[in-house]
Amino acid sequence: MKEPYLYTPGPTPLPDEVRQRLARPIIHHRSPEFATVLRRVHKNLQQIFETRQPVLVLTCSGSGAGEAGIVNLFSPGDTCLYTGGGKFAARWGQIMRAYGIRAVEIAVQPGRAPRVEDLAESLRQHPEAASVWLVHSETSTGVLADIQSLSEYIHAHSNALVCVDGVSSLCAHPCPMDSWGIDLLFAGSQKGFMAPPGLAFIALSDRAWQRAESASLPKFYFDLHAAREAWLSGTTPWTPAITTVCALDTALTMLLEEGLAAVHRRHARHSAALRAGLLALGLETFGAPPSHALTAVRLPSAGECFLRELRDRHQIVTAGGQGELKDVLFRIGHLGWYNEKDMLRVIKAIECSLIACGLPLRSGSGDQAMQKVYDAMVP
Amino acid sequence: MKEPYLYTPGPTPLPDEVRQRLARPIIHHRSPEFATVLRRVHKNLQQIFETRQPVLVLTCSGSGAGEAGIVNLFSPGDTCLYTGGGKFAARWGQIMRAYGIRAVEIAVQPGRAPRVEDLAESLRQHPEAASVWLVHSETSTGVLADIQSLSEYIHAHSNALVCVDGVSSLCAHPCPMDSWGIDLLFAGSQKGFMAPPGLAFIALSDRAWQRAESASLPKFYFDLHAAREAWLSGTTPWTPAITTVCALDTALTMLLEEGLAAVHRRHARHSAALRAGLLALGLETFGAPPSHALTAVRLPSAGECFLRELRDRHQIVTAGGQGELKDVLFRIGHLGWYNEKDMLRVIKAIECSLIACGLPLRSGSGDQAMQKVYDAMVP
Repeated sequence: MKEPYLYTPGPTPLPDEVRQRLARPIIHHRSPEFATVLRRVHKNLQQIFETRQPVLVLTCSGSGAGEAGIVNLFSPGDTCLYTGGGKFAARWGQIMRAYGIRAVEIAVQPGRAPRVEDLAESLRQHPEAASVWLVHSETSTGVLADIQSLSEYIHAHSNALVCVDGVSSLCAHPCPMDSWGIDLLFAGSQKGFMAPPGLAFIALSDRAWQRAESASLPKFYFDLHAAREAWLSGTTPWTPAITTVCALDTALTMLLEEGLAAVHRRHARHSAALRAGLLALGLETFGAPPSHALTAVRLPSAGECFLRELRDRHQIVTAGGQGELKDVLFRIGHLGWYNEKDMLRVIKAIECSLIACGLPLRSGSGDQAMQKVYDAMVP
Repeated sequence: MKEPYLYTPGPTPLPDEVRQRLARPIIHHRSPEFATVLRRVHKNLQQIFETRQPVLVLTCSGSGAGEAGIVNLFSPGDTCLYTGGGKFAARWGQIMRAYGIRAVEIAVQPGRAPRVEDLAESLRQHPEAASVWLVHSETSTGVLADIQSLSEYIHAHSNALVCVDGVSSLCAHPCPMDSWGIDLLFAGSQKGFMAPPGLAFIALSDRAWQRAESASLPKFYFDLHAAREAWLSGTTPWTPAITTVCALDTALTMLLEEGLAAVHRRHARHSAALRAGLLALGLETFGAPPSHALTAVRLPSAGECFLRELRDRHQIVTAGGQGELKDVLFRIGHLGWYNEKDMLRVIKAIECSLIACGLPLRSGSGDQAMQKVYDAMVP
């Protein structure tokens, strides 16, 4: 069977070097060999988070990291605000409620980014807010939030901690934790990091660590104090996903050899080129401003035929819409290990699938529109 | 550099087939391909747990699975008993306390297995006990508990749930969940399952599921109701460690092709043979009855020289003692993918290391003593 090719915003394809690393004999997690690997991973994650804080590696999904942030920072009865407008934004509210936190949604229409005005009203109504949770790149809608402005506003008008879900933004967009005043930032291995799922990364500001001292929610596996103590000695409190950490080590080395700025530019180019290509074919993208991690596209009529063609004839796996957007969107991931050829392949497959389902094309030259953007934007 | 060879009770060596599976292109966790893999994993895990209950796959370490058991079954203020005598036994007490459960240790001397008499007194004193936590194979001491007798006694004399840590026992020993009346059984992927770390498995009896209905401890990532609901549709509530699940699929297929009874016999042979070999060399094993997952051995004098020789000259990685047994023991894992040649290699390396450090040997023919046991025990 031909392997399907993933264009999903997580998991993202694994570079050959990463897959080869996975296949190496396993090493012990309490060995000097592993400590060397983990320390290098720690240092490289700090570069990507642009922070001097420890970036802790947890064995769990991104949702687990969000939960770790919540149980380490808050106490029952605390008020936390979170922006709406997406499945992942909503998840942090769900977790807060599960732990007895008063979670207040800041209403944001799906497809639109949260604005300072949206926050202003909520912060006025909730001066007691312990934190505001923001999603940098909302994976369910492909919308990018302006974290820098939002963070600045929150700090200027409240004492709330700024907590940022960077799950699908890190590596696709700059998200300098320290200079943007982010108090909590977390991400997952299977996104821009080009590694398999199973690891999540989380970092806290000095203010957040201070707040963690008095947080009374119960925790053990997700106890970040234990994780920080272990971090200092190049280890983890519980058995980590050793194989995945080693694969991540290879991926991080590749990313930083390319250079963080170049990695960001690569994502910006794919995003701009793909949007141009889709437009040329007469398709309509959803949401703005667009995240460079993925592009959400309105499903054309005969959507079922179209997606079946894409998948069965072209082996292209995209992601569907989520929640109320289930039958409205499909989402094309370009987060992680993609090159121009990969992206031209997807637009060609989309064009063929539209034709096969008898759908109208605007110009029928999506790849030419993409190539123009690639030529215009220096890599 | 020559790769060190692991004789540690987790992580255990990965068969070549498992490593090759890790290197395959990643598939999406919401795809029919992955559902097929996960359903096969689910079915095979039920065979190893010997249960008709769902065996849920969590992305975390064994400690995470223990925590999942605790937060899903209990409410703050509940009393839970747990057997002492080992690091892993103690961990379940620690987690209970972190969640406001009254955790009562049943005193057991390290190196000895908990007996019915030990439990009897504690159960008399705590008729309110919601559960008793037992460790089947205590990884820190190499001691095996008689779960069948203990479980029978607990059920006959209380309403407490029988919760069993099978982390290093499953695959090494029979642990038929349903017929032994186990209410909670959990394990980790990097032990007898011959897969990388990063996954844990957990199953609940009907009584335990019933109890879970009223358990009020907060949870989200470890919510087993969500995991059970997803299990029914061959999926997981959060992004799983896809690559590790696929590797586990290969490992489980290998184990069940060998046959569960044959796998248990293989571990029994390695355990008996190694003990005979160690005895022939004049070394003293620690603890009884012995788990077939690992053998704890009293460190000879000049222990530092001995372990250095073993590691640096022979590339044999064993595990040290833990906690108060740190400088008393070393532990040789034979849980998972080992054959006779591997075991003869370790005894030869031990013999050479003893000689190199000027330590007295009894007969100096550990491998012959081992071979005798192998010849006497049918595979």
